[in-house]
Amino acid sequence: MSTLPTGVVLSIGEELLEGRVLDTNSQCLSRELLSLGVQVRKCFTLGDVAGDLHSQLEDLRGQVQFVVSSGGLGPTADDRVRAEVSAFLDVPLEPIPEAIAPLRAVWARAHEGEPPDSFLNQAHVPLGATPIRNRVGTAWGFSCDLGQGTHLFCLPGPPQECRSTFFEGGGREELEVLLGGEDFLALGTFHTTGLPESKVEALVHDLMTQEGNPRMGITASPRKVSISVMAWREPGGKSATEVLEGTAAKLRTRLGDLLWGRDGQTLERVVVGELLQRGETVATAESCTGGLLAATLTKVSGASEVFGFGWSTYSNQAKMAQLGVDPTLLERHGAVSQEVAYAMAEGARKASGSTWAISATGIAGPSGGTEGKPVGTVFLGLAGPKGSFSVHRRQFSRAGREGVQLQTVRDCLELLRRELKGLPRLPSV
Amino acid sequence: MSTLPTGVVLSIGEELLEGRVLDTNSQCLSRELLSLGVQVRKCFTLGDVAGDLHSQLEDLRGQVQFVVSSGGLGPTADDRVRAEVSAFLDVPLEPIPEAIAPLRAVWARAHEGEPPDSFLNQAHVPLGATPIRNRVGTAWGFSCDLGQGTHLFCLPGPPQECRSTFFEGGGREELEVLLGGEDFLALGTFHTTGLPESKVEALVHDLMTQEGNPRMGITASPRKVSISVMAWREPGGKSATEVLEGTAAKLRTRLGDLLWGRDGQTLERVVVGELLQRGETVATAESCTGGLLAATLTKVSGASEVFGFGWSTYSNQAKMAQLGVDPTLLERHGAVSQEVAYAMAEGARKASGSTWAISATGIAGPSGGTEGKPVGTVFLGLAGPKGSFSVHRRQFSRAGREGVQLQTVRDCLELLRRELKGLPRLPSV
Repeated sequence: MSTLPTGVVLSIGEELLEGRVLDTNSQCLSRELLSLGVQVRKCFTLGDVAGDLHSQLEDLRGQVQFVVSSGGLGPTADDRVRAEVSAFLDVPLEPIPEAIAPLRAVWARAHEGEPPDSFLNQAHVPLGATPIRNRVGTAWGFSCDLGQGTHLFCLPGPPQECRSTFFEGGGREELEVLLGGEDFLALGTFHTTGLPESKVEALVHDLMTQEGNPRMGITASPRKVSISVMAWREPGGKSATEVLEGTAAKLRTRLGDLLWGRDGQTLERVVVGELLQRGETVATAESCTGGLLAATLTKVSGASEVFGFGWSTYSNQAKMAQLGVDPTLLERHGAVSQEVAYAMAEGARKASGSTWAISATGIAGPSGGTEGKPVGTVFLGLAGPKGSFSVHRRQFSRAGREGVQLQTVRDCLELLRRELKGLPRLPSV
Repeated sequence: MSTLPTGVVLSIGEELLEGRVLDTNSQCLSRELLSLGVQVRKCFTLGDVAGDLHSQLEDLRGQVQFVVSSGGLGPTADDRVRAEVSAFLDVPLEPIPEAIAPLRAVWARAHEGEPPDSFLNQAHVPLGATPIRNRVGTAWGFSCDLGQGTHLFCLPGPPQECRSTFFEGGGREELEVLLGGEDFLALGTFHTTGLPESKVEALVHDLMTQEGNPRMGITASPRKVSISVMAWREPGGKSATEVLEGTAAKLRTRLGDLLWGRDGQTLERVVVGELLQRGETVATAESCTGGLLAATLTKVSGASEVFGFGWSTYSNQAKMAQLGVDPTLLERHGAVSQEVAYAMAEGARKASGSTWAISATGIAGPSGGTEGKPVGTVFLGLAGPKGSFSVHRRQFSRAGREGVQLQTVRDCLELLRRELKGLPRLPSV
């Protein structure tokens, strides 16, 4: 790792220090820098205090090769980045010729008269800097050489604009050129669902504790355990990608069908993709998740090919009227029961004519729990061409109402994924 | 502002610098520090490199009154915070007597034999430090005096544990004691929906540009514009709360019924609360939002009192079979039309027997748009005791599929809120 060039990520804005806005740019930029082979040493969040950026740049110049900042490029008085960087470099601000006319047009659409200088300022960069185009907002970014081997990239703060300037406006491209296009590093993240972190870890423990290249980590989120792999070029040997793919092959062998996705893949996309391939459909019948399972499936573009019908049967009346759940089942076992989960799935499959139907009924909390059925008690049902079944899944109630709902949705998707793949069912717990 | 004590927030963990994990602790802690009257000067993210924390503490000692860190307290070799702080203070680590036995019990539940020192380490703090209890995990936090007027709080990194130690474990309480319990500062955020940022800004512009106390800001998220107010104590005059409430009263006058909530309030909670108060119910009939509206309503604990029935009628077949939408409407106007939105709402109200029913049908994208109905074209319907109507709402397609879905859900909630309050309807756009 010691041969990697280094970087620092800056986030600029008083609203970040006041906690009014969550900073997501740092994560995105850190991740991208790393994937380009730049090791991020630190991230800083600065406010809009005059001089803060200047002294930060003093500290960083000569210490790291790359500084990437977001924020502070807008039209208001507290957007000081352009002015501070030109003062730092002791050069004036120069207009970006191609940017001025479009900016005037934006102004004219909403205002009378001439735009103020502060507005046109958004199309200026320090003399000698390379402008970075912003396709989704008015503030251009720029990159420039700070001297002593340090290069600065300044991007706008709104998350969409930060990403657009970096990925589409030329920021990332220039960074690649500066890096000489070498394959320093390759990253992969491998996703599993269905086993707790400790059991996944046990399956790959010996791979993880090996010293050196690649470096591996494991992170758990609700009902999902992911293994991250960072591989780098062996001096005079394998490329970073070869090292990564060697480990990926080992993980596939170790984890088998526990492993369902890689990198940006999601469980809902895997399930929708599998159904698309098979020409099959799925319906949803939700109680405790209230519609979140249907909403999750329909986040996937193209879901309309596999999903036509969903019910949020929050009340008993809805379960009976819409899904044909037998009132005696509700009386005898209660709405939160394995029997009702089974009947909901069956009813949804029948009413929709879908190949599959998934149901969930449970106690999301914070109230509504009893001694026999505490908060986090959830039953899932699956109806399919070869029959139906339902399971009891105890969710971690400590995660709160939304956490219980999220875990339940992940379990529902995993239930169907396993059935589609012919894997053993999720066990009752 | 210059009289406020100052602080720095540290986040510690290689996974943050690698962009594998989004840091939400900094925002939470910054916000809380500010609400206690501590002005956060900077945030830093550090990795797990030995010595980094030590040199950071050197830099900060004597510069700010409070340093609050999260992360680096766990049982693994790269969790260096305890060791680095004791080295910094030149004191040994001491066990927390009450913490050792419970920690051994946690170990014994999952393992054979004695716990390793690294595990028991989680119940140790630098000699003289105040332990901070962790109710949801095994790693205790602590606070200690660094000298030169700087006080350090070290909290665990997992978001739930960070919050639990700070809010319930004694962190916040101790900070309050150190601050002397004075009412330095009061914060409020005021939420509106239905007008774009520029129009909300125009309504309160003169309040915002006043210099001094309180300081105000405006932030826009999909279909929501919020005004934040930071008020502080007038030397020898009003308390911070009095200043804040004075501004709150002005905002209420200026914004009228545009203003629907304050601070942690959400639009869905406002709507559910209003329905609860009136003893009324609502059903949902969703196409392009796929279930997200139902999921949003049922995020609210207690939603079962007002929400019984929801449909995700993603296919035309479902719209006909479940909501009784006339096939000729679908043929003549298409599923994405004002007529079908109207019919979906009517059908859902009838089939559910609810007081109200909301519907949404549109093109969430990225595909499916046409020249006449581009991505972002959405129609909403509302059926109620006094009849039904539907409106055309054009959503910003640049926000992507999920953005269009989210804007549509906010619009649906606002549609109902206005009807419940007897306000003018959301206009077609």
